[in-house]
Amino acid sequence: MSGRFITLEGGEGAGKSTQIVRLKAWLEQTGKSVVATREPGGAPGAEAIRDLIVSGDIERWDAMAEALLMTAARRMHVEQRIRPALAQGDWVVCDRFSDSTLAYQGYAHGLGRETIERLQQLAIDGLKPDLTLILDVPVAVGLARAAGRGGKEDRFERMGIDFHERLRQGFLEIARREPQRCAVLDATADPDSIADGIRRIVVERLGAERLGAERLEP
Amino acid sequence: MSGRFITLEGGEGAGKSTQIVRLKAWLEQTGKSVVATREPGGAPGAEAIRDLIVSGDIERWDAMAEALLMTAARRMHVEQRIRPALAQGDWVVCDRFSDSTLAYQGYAHGLGRETIERLQQLAIDGLKPDLTLILDVPVAVGLARAAGRGGKEDRFERMGIDFHERLRQGFLEIARREPQRCAVLDATADPDSIADGIRRIVVERLGAERLGAERLEP
Repeated sequence: MSGRFITLEGGEGAGKSTQIVRLKAWLEQTGKSVVATREPGGAPGAEAIRDLIVSGDIERWDAMAEALLMTAARRMHVEQRIRPALAQGDWVVCDRFSDSTLAYQGYAHGLGRETIERLQQLAIDGLKPDLTLILDVPVAVGLARAAGRGGKEDRFERMGIDFHERLRQGFLEIARREPQRCAVLDATADPDSIADGIRRIVVERLGAERLGAERLEP
Repeated sequence: MSGRFITLEGGEGAGKSTQIVRLKAWLEQTGKSVVATREPGGAPGAEAIRDLIVSGDIERWDAMAEALLMTAARRMHVEQRIRPALAQGDWVVCDRFSDSTLAYQGYAHGLGRETIERLQQLAIDGLKPDLTLILDVPVAVGLARAAGRGGKEDRFERMGIDFHERLRQGFLEIARREPQRCAVLDATADPDSIADGIRRIVVERLGAERLGAERLEP
């Protein structure tokens, strides 16, 4: 049996990593074998590419070079980790995937939807998640949260408010264009209600077994 | 006035770097402003990508990831160095360019011509050199020369004889398909005659001014 592929998406400080941990724990309670991973990264070569992209000067890469690097990292991640896990029946829960390239480089940097989609078609045969959860948060709130966590991986955070507004609208546009695959959650809510909301959507959309559904209402 | 863009191509140990130095010196004698550069690399971000690609385990990247990384490096090289130089009238002489991606990843690794061409179209708007000099050498000779120079940048050298045979045939196929842009030189000849041959071709194809032509026969 092939597993399911769930991605979490959203701008900086949307709370994706917190929710990935909770979603993985809940899916495991329902008896599933779960691989939690992230992009850019998730495989040895891909993590090396991550180091190049997420830190350093903003001008280090232009939008197209960013898209190519992200896609190179994704290629290794998909081939070495995601496809093998799905093939053996694991559920894969991933922090960012192609929709981030579409939102960051396609919409916010202005490369356009078509360029990014052609690139994903060439590189990963257009692999799409079964379900994409988009955590939506106002830009000011998200950037304040992201600044609070500190660290060196702040190259995108430094790209300015306008960039992040286009990014947020980009994710919402992705959800509007693919409502069957995507769901938008209000990420200003408290983490417990967001986790609840995510579990409900997973049950509804992927029928994550009655066990999961029962545990929703203890 | 826009400058001219000349690339040198060929497998491992074909003698490209030696000839780049000589071609640059000769073009400068004819009064041209010349930028000599190389791929992967030639710009700060692109050199960082080079470090990822040319050393380490063969399995570190698959063919598609290699093509994407090479093309990301090329994007920065083209935008930051090649196009600005050509726009101000410089002649650009480059050790490897898109034909290497086509020969290494397209032909030798088997990704195919069309995939590589689509990628170059997306990433660098299909920019092509005005002239491409392909230094052709039997695989055994080239690999022996490359082994002699030592160093850590040997990831491709380690890919086996069959890979390098397909690579050599790939370069020859590129020349057959685009005879007006490409010229093949026998790279088993001595460096002086190869340099002579290159100068003659540059004069014939790009009309590199009488001054250059006169200096051919002192």
